[in-house]
Amino acid sequence: MTDALPQTQLAVKWYPPRCDVRLESVPVPRVQHPDDAIVKIELAGLCGSDLHAYRGLEDISQPHVCGHEFVGHVVALGESFSPTSSPSRPPLYGTLRVGDKVISPFTTSCGDCRFCRLGFTARCVSSLLFGSPALPGAQAQYVRVPDAGGTLLPVEPSSPLNAILDKNLLLLADILPTGLFVAMQALAHPKLAPVLTGHPWPASESEFLKMEASASAAPLTHEDRTLTVGLVGLGPVGLCAAIALIDRLASLSVPLRIVAVDTNPIRRTKAQTIISTFSQSTLEELHVVDPDEAQVIVRKWGGGGCHAVLEVGHSISHRWVCPNMSHNAQVVGTPPALTLSHGLLAPSGVLSSCGVHQAPALPFTGREMYNTNMTLEFGRCNVRSLSDAAAGLLVRQQDALSEVVERIVPLTNAVEAYERFESGEWGKVVFNVWA
Amino acid sequence: MTDALPQTQLAVKWYPPRCDVRLESVPVPRVQHPDDAIVKIELAGLCGSDLHAYRGLEDISQPHVCGHEFVGHVVALGESFSPTSSPSRPPLYGTLRVGDKVISPFTTSCGDCRFCRLGFTARCVSSLLFGSPALPGAQAQYVRVPDAGGTLLPVEPSSPLNAILDKNLLLLADILPTGLFVAMQALAHPKLAPVLTGHPWPASESEFLKMEASASAAPLTHEDRTLTVGLVGLGPVGLCAAIALIDRLASLSVPLRIVAVDTNPIRRTKAQTIISTFSQSTLEELHVVDPDEAQVIVRKWGGGGCHAVLEVGHSISHRWVCPNMSHNAQVVGTPPALTLSHGLLAPSGVLSSCGVHQAPALPFTGREMYNTNMTLEFGRCNVRSLSDAAAGLLVRQQDALSEVVERIVPLTNAVEAYERFESGEWGKVVFNVWA
Repeated sequence: MTDALPQTQLAVKWYPPRCDVRLESVPVPRVQHPDDAIVKIELAGLCGSDLHAYRGLEDISQPHVCGHEFVGHVVALGESFSPTSSPSRPPLYGTLRVGDKVISPFTTSCGDCRFCRLGFTARCVSSLLFGSPALPGAQAQYVRVPDAGGTLLPVEPSSPLNAILDKNLLLLADILPTGLFVAMQALAHPKLAPVLTGHPWPASESEFLKMEASASAAPLTHEDRTLTVGLVGLGPVGLCAAIALIDRLASLSVPLRIVAVDTNPIRRTKAQTIISTFSQSTLEELHVVDPDEAQVIVRKWGGGGCHAVLEVGHSISHRWVCPNMSHNAQVVGTPPALTLSHGLLAPSGVLSSCGVHQAPALPFTGREMYNTNMTLEFGRCNVRSLSDAAAGLLVRQQDALSEVVERIVPLTNAVEAYERFESGEWGKVVFNVWA
Repeated sequence: MTDALPQTQLAVKWYPPRCDVRLESVPVPRVQHPDDAIVKIELAGLCGSDLHAYRGLEDISQPHVCGHEFVGHVVALGESFSPTSSPSRPPLYGTLRVGDKVISPFTTSCGDCRFCRLGFTARCVSSLLFGSPALPGAQAQYVRVPDAGGTLLPVEPSSPLNAILDKNLLLLADILPTGLFVAMQALAHPKLAPVLTGHPWPASESEFLKMEASASAAPLTHEDRTLTVGLVGLGPVGLCAAIALIDRLASLSVPLRIVAVDTNPIRRTKAQTIISTFSQSTLEELHVVDPDEAQVIVRKWGGGGCHAVLEVGHSISHRWVCPNMSHNAQVVGTPPALTLSHGLLAPSGVLSSCGVHQAPALPFTGREMYNTNMTLEFGRCNVRSLSDAAAGLLVRQQDALSEVVERIVPLTNAVEAYERFESGEWGKVVFNVWA
């Protein structure tokens, strides 16, 4: 099935120790395992987490093809893909076909292991990250997808996704589900249920664990039913998180106030513009500000802080940036970002942090956690199991989301694109790999 | 209304720097504020968290009356308590009467502030802890209860609680709701919903945020629907957490496996005995073991670890114990206890830690949190808003729970009781304050 594929292709490769990517000719991948698919890529994304390796923050020294966001078409499949595939295997092993248009999550997931069955596809036991030494990435013309029947998201002929531009479909590979994930970790937490439902904790804990709250308090006020959220970091994931949040609160008819924080004025301006494109929302207040102003606004709101803070990569001056660069870096989960987030959070709040975290220890003591009844939600987004929800969000909010990708450039511009994206000068970049 | 009260009473007072409690004659409290109640105490508890001050772990130097668990009768009320109380005030301001039998949470809560209205009574803006320099405690014959209309739990004449012995009602002041809280923080978390409901994440996130999980995985197996829980610390709160957990899983008809860990063999024996008194449960496996054995069992179960770990005070050799004592101390949330808990937890698991945490920083890096998609749930139990749920649990599981309190001693034995409870030689102790 792979005879028609060329022998070589263009790809962006990373070289150690840092800030060195090169456009090279590399072999086109072939099917190596019965569960593999080969995908011919149309568009590939450049993501903030590509910058971790770029900056030399990951503990790796092996050159590899970069990139983990792509949309394309299946051009070859392994032997597992058959209409008579076992019914205990993930459905795509019986239905995926050569020619299908697909989007891929940034990690593979088998669909067969306990974590996949439960929906925690990011923690699949055989999960591999595209664009790492373990799996060549997607800033290339072809990519091999292991466990393709558990991994790939097909764009069905009848899907409303067919009306969406590829540059926007690409958001489904990582940053839109990741933004949804970081918002949902907060919104779905039982501690936010009183604000969203009007029933005091713990009555609305969950559908099947329902318990009556003891009558010891005055009734909730209108102000109690207004959700306050801090958003720390206004990169592409931060924009997606804001859009996911506004979309969901509108569907719940719950008033929302956001304080959105970034030290980068370019990001702040873009966030203000995108969020103001919403035609329907319950957004009562939006403040796009720097960290000092954020504290003032939250104090003015009262209530001891925000119900939730979403932390997705705060711009800080950081010892890890490339030695020859003088600008700030956007890094998620750093102690300064988490300390800022904690400072914006009310007692009994949820701090949801998403992105590829680095080594520093959490800057919280047990006593601080106790004194503020804080929940910490961390981890990698389960993109595959969130795909349908993220696709629905993309269809509903395509106007706002179409502003997230700033430019499409040829793969031959990759070196410049990395430099300008790393410096914060460019926002989200997508590569046309055939231009 | 307070004319009939005596001038002085017996009370247990703590003196700095540590391990010094004395039985003294102190003034009987009087109503100081219109929202106050004076309660004549019948029984008062000695709790693990009394030991924090006892051991000199709290940053306090002021002598104070100890104790924060009590059951008794209202003997005086301030002027706020009136049948014509404002309908916007907590209901007890209109209904509490002199003579009512009451149980008190270990902290006061006004019932009027934003946190109380939402159900987060532990974070009430005017909350005070009984048995602290801010509020004299309940190891005494009388106690003043501020914000009594938001705080006290009345035992209504028609309540099934009237059939429960006072020594067991006393569990409602702290350790039973705290055990329920630590279990519920895990059970009500959306990450445990797939195991409990059979619907992969995120479909069962919550009733009002329902989203369909994308079809990328094989169906859940029977094994996937078996909840595995680690319980670190088998003091009184650990026993209550185990009972809450078993009770809830039985009601959901979901199979349960517990690995329960303590280094203290007396505690292990007691836990084994109590848990085996359950007549109805879905408990498939119970292993009451030391930390090394726990790791082996969890590895044998497979699945990468437990779905949840409840951490409620692990016995460790600790630099904070009283200098003249050679035994281990039970302290919640220490780095060794949290590291052990993390070691027992599967990726995408929930670590729920409850108790009064101390100063050390959390022993986790951002990268560890990311790599394991860990949720951390910390904080003080919202006893008042959990009172009804805890009372129901007490009524259902009174046989098992009646084993938690080991002995009732006169208040005059307080010094010995502190010493023996601190050393782990005695389990839960209750004081008969009139004997």
